[in-house]
Amino acid sequence: MGRHSDNSLQESANHTVLLTSPTNTIPKDSRQRSQQFMQNLQDEICTALEQLDGKASFHQDHWERAEGGEGRTRVIREGRVFEQGGVNFSAVWGNSLPASILAQRPEAAGHEFFATGTSMVLHPRNPYVPTVHLNYRYFEAGPIWWFGGGADLTPYYAFKEDAVHFHQTLKNACDVHNPEYYPTFKRWCDEYFYLRHREEQRGIGGIFFDYQDASGKLYVESQTDSSVAIYSQKVGNVARNWEDIFAFVQSCGQAFLPAYLPIVERRQGIEYGDRQRNFQLYRRGRYVEFNLVYDRGTVFGLQTKGRTESILMSLPPLARWEYCYEPEAGSPEAELTEVFLQPRDWV
Amino acid sequence: MGRHSDNSLQESANHTVLLTSPTNTIPKDSRQRSQQFMQNLQDEICTALEQLDGKASFHQDHWERAEGGEGRTRVIREGRVFEQGGVNFSAVWGNSLPASILAQRPEAAGHEFFATGTSMVLHPRNPYVPTVHLNYRYFEAGPIWWFGGGADLTPYYAFKEDAVHFHQTLKNACDVHNPEYYPTFKRWCDEYFYLRHREEQRGIGGIFFDYQDASGKLYVESQTDSSVAIYSQKVGNVARNWEDIFAFVQSCGQAFLPAYLPIVERRQGIEYGDRQRNFQLYRRGRYVEFNLVYDRGTVFGLQTKGRTESILMSLPPLARWEYCYEPEAGSPEAELTEVFLQPRDWV
Repeated sequence: MGRHSDNSLQESANHTVLLTSPTNTIPKDSRQRSQQFMQNLQDEICTALEQLDGKASFHQDHWERAEGGEGRTRVIREGRVFEQGGVNFSAVWGNSLPASILAQRPEAAGHEFFATGTSMVLHPRNPYVPTVHLNYRYFEAGPIWWFGGGADLTPYYAFKEDAVHFHQTLKNACDVHNPEYYPTFKRWCDEYFYLRHREEQRGIGGIFFDYQDASGKLYVESQTDSSVAIYSQKVGNVARNWEDIFAFVQSCGQAFLPAYLPIVERRQGIEYGDRQRNFQLYRRGRYVEFNLVYDRGTVFGLQTKGRTESILMSLPPLARWEYCYEPEAGSPEAELTEVFLQPRDWV
Repeated sequence: MGRHSDNSLQESANHTVLLTSPTNTIPKDSRQRSQQFMQNLQDEICTALEQLDGKASFHQDHWERAEGGEGRTRVIREGRVFEQGGVNFSAVWGNSLPASILAQRPEAAGHEFFATGTSMVLHPRNPYVPTVHLNYRYFEAGPIWWFGGGADLTPYYAFKEDAVHFHQTLKNACDVHNPEYYPTFKRWCDEYFYLRHREEQRGIGGIFFDYQDASGKLYVESQTDSSVAIYSQKVGNVARNWEDIFAFVQSCGQAFLPAYLPIVERRQGIEYGDRQRNFQLYRRGRYVEFNLVYDRGTVFGLQTKGRTESILMSLPPLARWEYCYEPEAGSPEAELTEVFLQPRDWV
């Protein structure tokens, strides 16, 4: 991937087109390059996960969209490490973005669009190995374009070392591009992966960003008084063009395997019993709640009649609910929600 | 309950107050009587279910709402018949209905409100015993009031006899009050308990209605070309007052036990194995999807910071997802979705 990206960057440097402002130029091959990156990211991740698992391999469904576009849905099941995991790639286009996106980006109305992305959720079997999610995406519609995405970790048992490693690896990838990326997008991640009805974070976070374009704003949401909104206002505008943001997204994507694999390697051998398994299944219920109630991609996909099996691939193979369950005070299960699932500075 | 209701009806006959129109009168003790009915319904159902189960009994949490009101959440777990079940009662009041209800009923804005209801979901352990849901509710806000509710059945294995019995019992309860109730509310139930993203009914339906007041309309939703909308237009206006609708809701509530208990008795002894259990857990995933994505009460409750544990009591104790699962052609599992989970005339 490294060499391929370098070539793409060099090739495209002389092929930019002017859109609305000097910094808002995008290369002529923006669609091809973003799509190729998303596709390569899926390949790299799947190859590495199969090697790590050693037992199961990904099954691929290639699908086509009547209005335009295609996707590759890849699922791994009943592996040594992964009870279930899915890695989606898609690139789709059409005459008009769905209403739910146009509400957020009215400038895109009346323009044909292009959207490509890779998304992934892994549900390991061993409760000591955290669930992890990744999604990177790119949109174009008429005069506007943006990148979005991120990666976040959802442990069932708290290991500070793992949380620090995951965040530090993502921070290193961010810092190469701008020292304000990590502190802003880490806060945005905490804001986004929050279950209001439980007053709980989904996990220990990571990074999350959306609507990244040449406008200079880092945080682009309706909130004005949240932690990330205040931080982003303080940072102010950051001059960036398409190439800057694409390079940043590539770094983030490439940081995923080094951020996650060492954690799996450290935790996969820990013995566990019914107690840990039951707690994992209970906490997976929260994952279901977040994805079906709050997750932008899931709700958007279901509303717009996306491919349901690909969208809901993020749901766990097995999940449990228990009325008014409370972990025993002082237990590792209580430590998870009381200490780890609170927004905090990991690095 | 029968005698109690009769007394209430006689007592209240001379205590009505005029509101907006001659038919739109409500008794002075409308709140007390509706609340008492909901509370009694919870009691009757819990008593009968405990007798049937024989092993587990309901655990009750009594809660109070700071702004006004209270509730009794009752949960049965790990019973002989019921793996998990919850029966909620609540009566709450305050200065203003939540925005999501005001959007549907703008006339209620600026008025204090009262709301009472009983809701129930039962998740039996044996996959041959269907899951069942019931909810009846009553609202008052300034000049307006309405009743809503219904009951619907979600089998995992198809027994025509059970579907016919469930529908016939509800139909009998409806027919006492108006012959158009059952055909209208049966269609409304099929429309409401539908998973768009799966293109599937949640179960074999039953009855569902909302916004029942003295306006005369049976079906009150934005759809105009659906089966229930067309049927209701054909029926036209039905003259009814508060007492008529309350009596109808009482009949529906009292029809629940005779509609469901004989089905449990017939199916509880059927032997099952991993195959049936796995299919039940898989189908329970659909129940989770419906409740978190579409169910009005759940989404409303979570948005308005209701008591989360009471709201999500409807979720199953254990549920399973499997990417692109398809039951074997011609199997009982295939028959469920292909034949039973289609809107059809059961009686």
